[in-house]
Amino acid sequence: MNKIKVGIIGGTGYTGVELLRLLAHHPHAEVVSITSRHEAGRAVDQLFPSLRNVSALVFTEADPVHLAKCDIVFCATPNGVAMQQAPSLIRDGVRVIDLSADFRLRDVAVWEQWYGQPHRAPTLVEQAVYGLPEFNRAEIKQAVLVANPGCYPTAVLLGYLPLVEANLVDLTSLIADVKSGVSGAGRNASLTTSFCEVSDSFKAYAVSGHRHLPEIMQGLQTLSRESVELLFTPHLLPMIRGIHATLYARLNADGCDLSDEALQTVYHTRFANEPFVDIMDFGSHPNTRSVRGSNLCRLSVHRPQGGDRVVVLSVEDNLVKGAAGQAVQNMNLMFGLDEVTGLADSAIIP
Amino acid sequence: MNKIKVGIIGGTGYTGVELLRLLAHHPHAEVVSITSRHEAGRAVDQLFPSLRNVSALVFTEADPVHLAKCDIVFCATPNGVAMQQAPSLIRDGVRVIDLSADFRLRDVAVWEQWYGQPHRAPTLVEQAVYGLPEFNRAEIKQAVLVANPGCYPTAVLLGYLPLVEANLVDLTSLIADVKSGVSGAGRNASLTTSFCEVSDSFKAYAVSGHRHLPEIMQGLQTLSRESVELLFTPHLLPMIRGIHATLYARLNADGCDLSDEALQTVYHTRFANEPFVDIMDFGSHPNTRSVRGSNLCRLSVHRPQGGDRVVVLSVEDNLVKGAAGQAVQNMNLMFGLDEVTGLADSAIIP
Amino acid sequence: MNKIKVGIIGGTGYTGVELLRLLAHHPHAEVVSITSRHEAGRAVDQLFPSLRNVSALVFTEADPVHLAKCDIVFCATPNGVAMQQAPSLIRDGVRVIDLSADFRLRDVAVWEQWYGQPHRAPTLVEQAVYGLPEFNRAEIKQAVLVANPGCYPTAVLLGYLPLVEANLVDLTSLIADVKSGVSGAGRNASLTTSFCEVSDSFKAYAVSGHRHLPEIMQGLQTLSRESVELLFTPHLLPMIRGIHATLYARLNADGCDLSDEALQTVYHTRFANEPFVDIMDFGSHPNTRSVRGSNLCRLSVHRPQGGDRVVVLSVEDNLVKGAAGQAVQNMNLMFGLDEVTGLADSAIIP
Amino acid sequence: MNKIKVGIIGGTGYTGVELLRLLAHHPHAEVVSITSRHEAGRAVDQLFPSLRNVSALVFTEADPVHLAKCDIVFCATPNGVAMQQAPSLIRDGVRVIDLSADFRLRDVAVWEQWYGQPHRAPTLVEQAVYGLPEFNRAEIKQAVLVANPGCYPTAVLLGYLPLVEANLVDLTSLIADVKSGVSGAGRNASLTTSFCEVSDSFKAYAVSGHRHLPEIMQGLQTLSRESVELLFTPHLLPMIRGIHATLYARLNADGCDLSDEALQTVYHTRFANEPFVDIMDFGSHPNTRSVRGSNLCRLSVHRPQGGDRVVVLSVEDNLVKGAAGQAVQNMNLMFGLDEVTGLADSAIIP
Repeated sequence: MNKIKVGIIGGTGYTGVELLRLLAHHPHAEVVSITSRHEAGRAVDQLFPSLRNVSALVFTEADPVHLAKCDIVFCATPNGVAMQQAPSLIRDGVRVIDLSADFRLRDVAVWEQWYGQPHRAPTLVEQAVYGLPEFNRAEIKQAVLVANPGCYPTAVLLGYLPLVEANLVDLTSLIADVKSGVSGAGRNASLTTSFCEVSDSFKAYAVSGHRHLPEIMQGLQTLSRESVELLFTPHLLPMIRGIHATLYARLNADGCDLSDEALQTVYHTRFANEPFVDIMDFGSHPNTRSVRGSNLCRLSVHRPQGGDRVVVLSVEDNLVKGAAGQAVQNMNLMFGLDEVTGLADSAIIP
Repeated sequence: MNKIKVGIIGGTGYTGVELLRLLAHHPHAEVVSITSRHEAGRAVDQLFPSLRNVSALVFTEADPVHLAKCDIVFCATPNGVAMQQAPSLIRDGVRVIDLSADFRLRDVAVWEQWYGQPHRAPTLVEQAVYGLPEFNRAEIKQAVLVANPGCYPTAVLLGYLPLVEANLVDLTSLIADVKSGVSGAGRNASLTTSFCEVSDSFKAYAVSGHRHLPEIMQGLQTLSRESVELLFTPHLLPMIRGIHATLYARLNADGCDLSDEALQTVYHTRFANEPFVDIMDFGSHPNTRSVRGSNLCRLSVHRPQGGDRVVVLSVEDNLVKGAAGQAVQNMNLMFGLDEVTGLADSAIIP
Repeated sequence: MNKIKVGIIGGTGYTGVELLRLLAHHPHAEVVSITSRHEAGRAVDQLFPSLRNVSALVFTEADPVHLAKCDIVFCATPNGVAMQQAPSLIRDGVRVIDLSADFRLRDVAVWEQWYGQPHRAPTLVEQAVYGLPEFNRAEIKQAVLVANPGCYPTAVLLGYLPLVEANLVDLTSLIADVKSGVSGAGRNASLTTSFCEVSDSFKAYAVSGHRHLPEIMQGLQTLSRESVELLFTPHLLPMIRGIHATLYARLNADGCDLSDEALQTVYHTRFANEPFVDIMDFGSHPNTRSVRGSNLCRLSVHRPQGGDRVVVLSVEDNLVKGAAGQAVQNMNLMFGLDEVTGLADSAIIP
Repeated sequence: MNKIKVGIIGGTGYTGVELLRLLAHHPHAEVVSITSRHEAGRAVDQLFPSLRNVSALVFTEADPVHLAKCDIVFCATPNGVAMQQAPSLIRDGVRVIDLSADFRLRDVAVWEQWYGQPHRAPTLVEQAVYGLPEFNRAEIKQAVLVANPGCYPTAVLLGYLPLVEANLVDLTSLIADVKSGVSGAGRNASLTTSFCEVSDSFKAYAVSGHRHLPEIMQGLQTLSRESVELLFTPHLLPMIRGIHATLYARLNADGCDLSDEALQTVYHTRFANEPFVDIMDFGSHPNTRSVRGSNLCRLSVHRPQGGDRVVVLSVEDNLVKGAAGQAVQNMNLMFGLDEVTGLADSAIIP
């Protein structure tokens, strides 16, 4: 089988280098082009010495002719770029996975409100498939354009999915208290993510409203008939990688009827065939390190003091299952490969 | 004025050394005795080089005769020790501030259930005053025995206090999602708090029930007539000091009627004369570093998207306002001193 | 080809779990037995959740009959254990790689002095091959017993090797100022490696003499005819993995004659065919993160202000090239496999 | 006594906020003016919430008329600014302590070479006194302009001082392997000091030549008659505050004659009356945390294996003894105050 020819637009960020790391060992894909306006002409392994002897690529300007020769292009660009690049690529028959937020929200008006700019490719929005395989695998396989989910939405949606699908919780009671490592903020020169500001400290941010809120709301709404109320509180952790979502919900009458075992079974059954969702024992506490560098989302379910409230803990590596790893998972699906190809790495401990 | 003669039982832990640091610069108190079974005979500054040239004390065995000469004794011991030492000290006329949990719960049966041992001084429990000055300053001034609050309860109670006192929230809707630095676990040889296990990772623990839950419940119940339901979820942060409580509640009809400004005013008014509670602007995000090493609890209030839910952020240094600093604050009150004496240090930035 | 049957004695430490991670993806080896006195009967993935769905192994008591069925046994035990286990294994035809210090020093008297116990298998010491492939690959291929080098000696010896072999430096001028992450101290409950003691701080230790000193001296002495004087100063870094050796030497007359380019060429030539030694540009600064999780030792050479002193910077992951990775590299050599098999992972950035 | 009226130019950096923290509790000094071009009009406690209720200052433009009313002005500015501001201040009778590098090097040509710009106030250079009190206290007391030493030079010079003054070491054998926390790089938006780049990693930098090298050389040269050769290798630690210098030297014949006790006595004697230099037991290992937030330089002396080489370990807080604390110490000297005024804080542990 010929290798899938992969292009990466915007390869100098942390999702870009993570794509390079994952694809370097992918047996059926090969990165043939990687672009960056700022670093054009520079060898990839000069910017990222970890890729010495792994990648011989050189950053180039984004050249449409060159990119059109790819089978698939990953957009690892800031919000607002992919919507300008994707249309011509798709016209040229290239499939696209956008790791930014450009195609995640189906309601263009909502997108424009949260992202503060007009959408340049509203017609493509309808075509885009939301790339959460555990939720809509079939559509992803056929997709021409995949909107790779945000890091927070992946952890939150996978955690709530079984409860909401099975209609076991009061949908007006949802609270997602979520904590993220600093790499979620990207590879930028910024005082707010500097070592001296972040290290040895902790804080919430954007409590009044974060861009991932409408994305999570849309996902939950798709799963349910009723209206959803969600509080989403992001926090910044003094560590590089990892998201930990602590998810709260009040069980409805059906939910309250369930024993702990039955509740646990709901999760086991829902994710029984999912290679990248791992349900831990009821009442256990996953830590983010246990998925660092891997494509897993690891969950555990709690029902404190046997009350009517359920707590779900959900951890992932924001750069893998929350970004580049999920993108590769989507590529595997789009090209008919085994979904786990190139994604078998386990976390490094300690 | 003669200096207050202070004794410290169990001075080798992190609350012990923090007491020494704070009292070293206290103008009206002097540590005259510090005890430790394991380190008896060793100079304090050998164990803690940070105290070289600051403290000339030597650890001794706990000698009742010697301790009886103190005006006040701080118990910085593991749970279960103070209840054995306090009775004779009090008989000898020494006032006691217990930084452990022995006298925090008024219901001895509940204490025995959560701490897994019989209580040795149940009659003293009634006498003990819960040492949260913002809540019962008058009683503390008269107290012979002060039960210094736990680190988590301090941050959570101060955050909820104005809402619950003013009867603005649905008391069955409370969720305290709280994150603590590692020093809260004490100074122990333990794999679970070793650098390689904690660093660069994050997790929840004791989701099904933590010992500080009944203490928080007792505090909230005292403030309210109605029954309280609280979820309390502690997490372990990869940092040394600091607690960040993210507190959720649903506003009741009275609460919903309030504007953001009115809500903010509730907090400002309630803590107007409190030297160690700092209310930030509505909608802001305090970080734990801003109180590191200081005795402050810093709060901010949020009402996301103007809905019926309120989010309060509460930060403190678990070893200062959450332990040793609050104990000194209580001592100041008990001896008629200005409450802020010796506690004026601001946080070190960065 | 049949897979190599691997046993691991003492698999609960950080080198043990790292061996499991590396061997899980090794195409020609399979761990069939892993022992631990304390954890016998417990599933490996219960102790290390990162190995869920990766390893179905269960810790067992060390059973000689069972271990004798292995092709190779790795001893990931505290010092003093392998010398008791290795003799019978070797009699049973099992090859052994010892990751502890038991067989590293050829002079048994020196070993006994530094390790404070009598050596139980002095005759095996002669048979043991020091497992630094870049130094004696041929012997390793034939070895029955390999003494896997210490983490510090690997970084220091690889850094000095070209200079000493080519006789370019004054051998009485060597100073190795070396900094290690905390995982080098192993997986133990210990106050000295607890988060609150290590984090946000830095110190030297064992300046007067560290057990790796005689091991490094032996290595350097083997390379040279003259007597060697080395200062070796280890330091503890507030991070988990990684060693950074800053190596100083005074160039002798031959060394001083070399241009910077010629000096660089000495390194390039010496390691031209080494898959796991990467020479960076002259005057560059490798960071430990660039080799985190990989089996690389990355070097750079400096000659400050063109003087007569050379500075070599050498970084490695202490648990990979400094322990488990090098052990797998040695296994590959011993079984005639391509040396890089199972060791191709690049470092995770960031 | 009237309080000393203090101005701070460039108060938005980490040395600026550290000056504010230290001076807030200084009994005989008061900050009356703090300037910043970027933050003019903003309250100090808005930028630094740690100073809420501590400082009511507002940043202003640097107004010469206003500053001329100060008794002393601290320049906490980037290199190149103080040399433009100092002349007029001094003409107006204001004393100046420059925390930048502008007046540290007596040889203007050398300064211009290392700092890459013409010096704007070369005549003032002669007048400037190098502000290392342990070295030239008398001159500082009389000084109009003090050049506050760099963070690295302070730690290195204090460590070498007794050996060089007493002529005990070979001055061509000096190697200073020094490690610094990230705050030494200042408060800037920069990728190289971002959390994701610095955390969990370690590296050397500027091995071929760092700007503090000529400053250290000048200091050592002043102490000695002979020519000095020094290698100075800075490294970046994944922590916020703290410098650890590991200092190497070969003892000359006189030095070799000394017993360990005599060597230790050299240090004790030299620093007997120094309030901010603490000599630990011979052979001990100070950690940076033990001086975090304090104005101490803590030293220990080693002579590994009784050889002819001495190793001195020197730790300090780079923002206190390495910058703002030393500046306050100099101010105290210049105004005839007790040198330790306002500088008594001990380090916070843990």
